[in-house]
Amino acid sequence: VRRTRPVVLLTDFGPQSAYVGQLKLVLHRLAPQAPVLDLAHDLPPQNRAAAALTLEGARRFLPRNAVVVVVVDPGVGSSRRIVAARYADDVAVLAPDNGILRAACGFEEPAELRAVANAALFLKPVSTVFHGRDILAPVAAKLARGMAWAELGPALSWRHLVPAPWSDAAFYGDSADAEVILADRFGNLLTNLRAEWLRGHRVLQVRCRRRRFPFVTHYEAVAPGDPLALIGSHGRLELAVRDGSAAERFAISAGHPVRVDFGIR
Amino acid sequence: VRRTRPVVLLTDFGPQSAYVGQLKLVLHRLAPQAPVLDLAHDLPPQNRAAAALTLEGARRFLPRNAVVVVVVDPGVGSSRRIVAARYADDVAVLAPDNGILRAACGFEEPAELRAVANAALFLKPVSTVFHGRDILAPVAAKLARGMAWAELGPALSWRHLVPAPWSDAAFYGDSADAEVILADRFGNLLTNLRAEWLRGHRVLQVRCRRRRFPFVTHYEAVAPGDPLALIGSHGRLELAVRDGSAAERFAISAGHPVRVDFGIR
Amino acid sequence: VRRTRPVVLLTDFGPQSAYVGQLKLVLHRLAPQAPVLDLAHDLPPQNRAAAALTLEGARRFLPRNAVVVVVVDPGVGSSRRIVAARYADDVAVLAPDNGILRAACGFEEPAELRAVANAALFLKPVSTVFHGRDILAPVAAKLARGMAWAELGPALSWRHLVPAPWSDAAFYGDSADAEVILADRFGNLLTNLRAEWLRGHRVLQVRCRRRRFPFVTHYEAVAPGDPLALIGSHGRLELAVRDGSAAERFAISAGHPVRVDFGIR
Repeated sequence: VRRTRPVVLLTDFGPQSAYVGQLKLVLHRLAPQAPVLDLAHDLPPQNRAAAALTLEGARRFLPRNAVVVVVVDPGVGSSRRIVAARYADDVAVLAPDNGILRAACGFEEPAELRAVANAALFLKPVSTVFHGRDILAPVAAKLARGMAWAELGPALSWRHLVPAPWSDAAFYGDSADAEVILADRFGNLLTNLRAEWLRGHRVLQVRCRRRRFPFVTHYEAVAPGDPLALIGSHGRLELAVRDGSAAERFAISAGHPVRVDFGIR
Repeated sequence: VRRTRPVVLLTDFGPQSAYVGQLKLVLHRLAPQAPVLDLAHDLPPQNRAAAALTLEGARRFLPRNAVVVVVVDPGVGSSRRIVAARYADDVAVLAPDNGILRAACGFEEPAELRAVANAALFLKPVSTVFHGRDILAPVAAKLARGMAWAELGPALSWRHLVPAPWSDAAFYGDSADAEVILADRFGNLLTNLRAEWLRGHRVLQVRCRRRRFPFVTHYEAVAPGDPLALIGSHGRLELAVRDGSAAERFAISAGHPVRVDFGIR
Repeated sequence: VRRTRPVVLLTDFGPQSAYVGQLKLVLHRLAPQAPVLDLAHDLPPQNRAAAALTLEGARRFLPRNAVVVVVVDPGVGSSRRIVAARYADDVAVLAPDNGILRAACGFEEPAELRAVANAALFLKPVSTVFHGRDILAPVAAKLARGMAWAELGPALSWRHLVPAPWSDAAFYGDSADAEVILADRFGNLLTNLRAEWLRGHRVLQVRCRRRRFPFVTHYEAVAPGDPLALIGSHGRLELAVRDGSAAERFAISAGHPVRVDFGIR
């Protein structure tokens, strides 16, 4: 028994829905030996930020030769491209070209990037609404079984991919302009400011919608029900309420600007 | 390592619920080498139409020697039969005899049909409320490992199975009488009229609850918020609202009659 | 191919959420050959009773050499211990020490019990909020591959574990004092009174919140909409309403006392 590469799935199809089921039937047909791992299927529908942050958070746990399939695809049926990225550690990611790859910061510039354009690899007929099943799954199965990378389609430049659905936080001398990019299911507000960018800065306060969030290292530093800002498990600046939902309490959602004030270090 | 046949699961138990979990523990005990594929577990509870349409939609993707287990079973604990169908391509389906098999049109008359009646194959004691775990799972595991088909129980006739929970659309010279059989989770309304039956007809209009649905080939043919009728991904006539829910907007649900008017071709 | 022990997962992370996904990525990295079985991931958040009853209900279906991982962990980040229990049939259970193990009555006193304390086995760094991924998953993977039990940490006494989140029902001559421990998702009310303790008793009536529940052997013994008490599929005394929710109808929830009156036998 020759083991093939594992396939990792990330979709917004809903847990154990028939959409996920059909993906797996296709994978099983074409690569019956490939282990299939579900990263998540409960993403909020068509939310590219949620997909990017989930991918970023899982980056360091991926099997070294994984073929990752991302199907969060508001543009399905339009002419948006599907792309395949191969990284230095031999992880491959297949995804619609809609900004998710560029947004998932754990994924640096890939060693190789191609358009998934070779129609001979797809199921026939290709549905207009289910490219995950008819394009992404069969291509993933073939990569898992060792198909040469050049079969996919023409090489692309990383710079020509659709950019992330947000800009990264902008740093000035004594402050940074950030932005909420996702309210998670607990109502915590993730921002476009990554922890490592704060090195060398001392955060004095964080503000959003005229509200002040004291910057602390853990939830227990404030009283239950009080607001706070901290570096969360995603490695990003987050706004939260202890034992509560910051999103609901302050009516903050993706897109709201966040201001971070620094003190002298 | 001798690989056994894959087992495909379709239930209304709820995603990753303990009911699904116990099914898998039993399968693992009796057929540890069998790949287990989840087709779907998020079906609306006890909805036979949803089960049949999901099965029908997955038909062409099933592994050729799959053992499919359907547990959507409003009659569990009553005297309804459990049946096993073997198709020409060696796909087997185990299901309660409640109309789902006859409704899933992708499944034509089977090559062999038997009652699952041999109690020696079941777990002991058989729970009155969980035949999926105590009857269907152990029987599926044994079929996956190559048990002879005749062990199951007496042969049955396809004509004696419980009929589908709906009648197929009736065609007249210039019209067809159809019926809504399922509102899916997007509020699209699936009917009992299959696409291939429209060959040779030109659809003029589709009506339901005094409302007219223009017959189009894709959603973008109407304005956002407008009603439409089209052949959906299930290969059936569907009523829908672009970017909306036809079920909610027009208060249409399963059982409502649909009238299709034809023009001269 | 040497097969390793199967790993069985039971969590409150939500079906096919990224938390479940990351657990599986870690398991795959460290024990790629281990079959992974999902017992359930849809448990109500942080509900120890639900976890214990799910574990108890699955006890007799577990593979004989399973490594079970329970992550229902209201105390994550605090100093609560993680423990590993090995039973006579070689089933192992890893869980936070929060009463779940002692509550799952199917699990009698283990043959061996240890603290999971050897930090060399953990992922680095250990997150303060996700011990499931950073401690439980890698330890389970190593046990699945045959690591010696003594590597885990010091031996513990069963009597020093955190007790169950409920007391067992107390029996008097002509009555028993019981308690509701969980309202399941159908609104059935499970109690701390196990079926086998009723041997030799004849139940006259069951009362809760001034309401009488006739004790019957199956739902159909009462009219639709009527209350009843019976021995449910968990092997425990349950209060229910036929075709309805006892929890909603009578506003009963976990913690409410239940009185059982016996007749002369």
